[in-house]
Amino acid sequence: MADAAPSNDTARLEAFSDGVFAIAITLLVLEVRVPGGNGTLAHKLADAWPGYIGYAISFVTIGIMWANHHSVFRLIARTTHGLIVGNLLLLLTVAFLPFPTTVLAEHLRHGGADQRTAAVFYSGTFILIAIGFQVLWQVASRGNRLILPGREAAADQISRSYRWGVPSYVVSTLLALWKPPAGLALVGAMALFWTIPRGRAE
Amino acid sequence: MADAAPSNDTARLEAFSDGVFAIAITLLVLEVRVPGGNGTLAHKLADAWPGYIGYAISFVTIGIMWANHHSVFRLIARTTHGLIVGNLLLLLTVAFLPFPTTVLAEHLRHGGADQRTAAVFYSGTFILIAIGFQVLWQVASRGNRLILPGREAAADQISRSYRWGVPSYVVSTLLALWKPPAGLALVGAMALFWTIPRGRAE
Amino acid sequence: MADAAPSNDTARLEAFSDGVFAIAITLLVLEVRVPGGNGTLAHKLADAWPGYIGYAISFVTIGIMWANHHSVFRLIARTTHGLIVGNLLLLLTVAFLPFPTTVLAEHLRHGGADQRTAAVFYSGTFILIAIGFQVLWQVASRGNRLILPGREAAADQISRSYRWGVPSYVVSTLLALWKPPAGLALVGAMALFWTIPRGRAE
Amino acid sequence: MADAAPSNDTARLEAFSDGVFAIAITLLVLEVRVPGGNGTLAHKLADAWPGYIGYAISFVTIGIMWANHHSVFRLIARTTHGLIVGNLLLLLTVAFLPFPTTVLAEHLRHGGADQRTAAVFYSGTFILIAIGFQVLWQVASRGNRLILPGREAAADQISRSYRWGVPSYVVSTLLALWKPPAGLALVGAMALFWTIPRGRAE
Repeated sequence: MADAAPSNDTARLEAFSDGVFAIAITLLVLEVRVPGGNGTLAHKLADAWPGYIGYAISFVTIGIMWANHHSVFRLIARTTHGLIVGNLLLLLTVAFLPFPTTVLAEHLRHGGADQRTAAVFYSGTFILIAIGFQVLWQVASRGNRLILPGREAAADQISRSYRWGVPSYVVSTLLALWKPPAGLALVGAMALFWTIPRGRAE
Repeated sequence: MADAAPSNDTARLEAFSDGVFAIAITLLVLEVRVPGGNGTLAHKLADAWPGYIGYAISFVTIGIMWANHHSVFRLIARTTHGLIVGNLLLLLTVAFLPFPTTVLAEHLRHGGADQRTAAVFYSGTFILIAIGFQVLWQVASRGNRLILPGREAAADQISRSYRWGVPSYVVSTLLALWKPPAGLALVGAMALFWTIPRGRAE
Repeated sequence: MADAAPSNDTARLEAFSDGVFAIAITLLVLEVRVPGGNGTLAHKLADAWPGYIGYAISFVTIGIMWANHHSVFRLIARTTHGLIVGNLLLLLTVAFLPFPTTVLAEHLRHGGADQRTAAVFYSGTFILIAIGFQVLWQVASRGNRLILPGREAAADQISRSYRWGVPSYVVSTLLALWKPPAGLALVGAMALFWTIPRGRAE
Repeated sequence: MADAAPSNDTARLEAFSDGVFAIAITLLVLEVRVPGGNGTLAHKLADAWPGYIGYAISFVTIGIMWANHHSVFRLIARTTHGLIVGNLLLLLTVAFLPFPTTVLAEHLRHGGADQRTAAVFYSGTFILIAIGFQVLWQVASRGNRLILPGREAAADQISRSYRWGVPSYVVSTLLALWKPPAGLALVGAMALFWTIPRGRAE
């Protein structure tokens, strides 16, 4: 496996990650489906609304994660063996998102236990993603080991915001267990939280 | 999320967008299917003609949108937080197109209400895409904020042509409500309209 | 749409095309399927052999087309409006290949009329692809308009080999109509023919 | 097809390969599915565990192969006709992996003959992939023909480790025939073996 390499090596790691993000985001549409059964097409297309919502939320969320990944890598000077493994684990969690999105879209419409399960499963996936980001960032930033000289303050800013990741999604998952819409609303609110520009302290 | 950054940052935004366009365009073939039921394969393949037409129209349309996206970004000097969000919203609408394409292909053959619904849904998606392009372009061009110095006249040319986008697709959608083939013909005509080279005023 | 632009513009056109080739080649595996029904898994996996053959042939063929596309673009100095449109039409035909591959894989095992239809459909798709390559190459090479100075002899070499494309696939399609395996063998032989290095005359 | 070309040509070959790896790795999620039938969603999601394991193992494995491919190409000075063909054959085997992954995920839960068949099929695919890596590497390293000057010792290190590939997967496949979990454990252990950094001898 690739070992410590000069800074331009980051380029290929980023290109590969961009590919995975771009594919995961575009695959989401394959999970939007016209419900079967009788009735007019107009009625069925209207009935497919949870699919549209699931598509839009997951698309925007993966897009925001891509932009964050991008911000993080602008502070990283070089790749190491550990960074490649950490990045791979993050991508493992991100590329999984289309599955809980489908599960959510199929069960959002119905109330009851299955709706609750779907919301918990969806929100719980974000705990894993937050852990993935945290691990990648720890590998890169511990002792400013891989941080570009002069960008330490920017790195600190990112470290502070990442502290909110795992606890917030644990809360949203517990919320979803109690009241599914409330849990999903917190997941949406967190997506907005991640859009705040960070990592540009001078 | 990524903040204002030097010009070479546009490269990664473009590469990510290229990925999404390339995947969305290639996924279209997954929606071409041999109809089930009895009969010879020859008969079924002939019967699948709306799938071929849907594939070809959406492929060419996404290809033209890719080329336009490309033209637009050649005038843009740098990325900002707003540009990344605007671009993401545009990609959200573009990557959705395979779904209405399938719906259209499955219902084009049959006349009646469902054909009308499918044509309206397909044409209506282009209203959203046109809004997406408009929003991205407003973020970039308002006050020539992100426009490369010396390319202001080229940017004006693009601004003028984009004014036609939303109204044209509103008209094509209303047309499709009245006469589906007429609405689809206008969508096709607009695709040709977008192939006219723009943005090279000196 | 993008207009005549400096030489480095070819880079983005090539990157977009690479994306489409890479996705089309990787999507092929989605069409390999375990047949339903009763029986042991071992028996079913053995029974799926036409799927493996279809996957391998189409994978190698798209790979060879990618390499050819690559060779061709190394002789091209700049992009024009026409080149972008010609390239898009070529990609339209290449990205369609997964569909006839599936049709072939599903009907190769059974003899009779449907096997013949599938072979003719598969071979016929290559007529379209050959036309696509021919059109792209005509746009680029007519009067050496877009050819890099000094590479005219290499371009002539490619022009000569492309003359064989359309007629050969017309013959293979007629052969497939008469004897499906013979037609498919000629398609395979042509794939080998395209692997001969060209375009490096000094 | 592309002939011997200057070193920067490797860039496009790597970019194309990156695309195939990124797509193959992201497609894996499409094979994770909620089992049909009755029961609560919670029960079904728990029941889908072989799908999660299959996804995780194949994701990490393809990721490690990507990193290895990357290491190998950092030692290669230029592309040749043979290298392009060898690389294509390797990608042919890598891009096939989603299929045996699905087969494994669907049959891991059930014991008996089908579980054994699925494990043998999965492990056997790695024999083909190991042959693919071996062929690519032989083309590149035989007589240090395409190796960057000064990197011969690093290349030798890789040659030594690749000798273990084919025999190990033959053993894991035979093991799987006897005891499926033992065979799969060896496949997992080999994945860890490939993560050891190589190719950086000075």
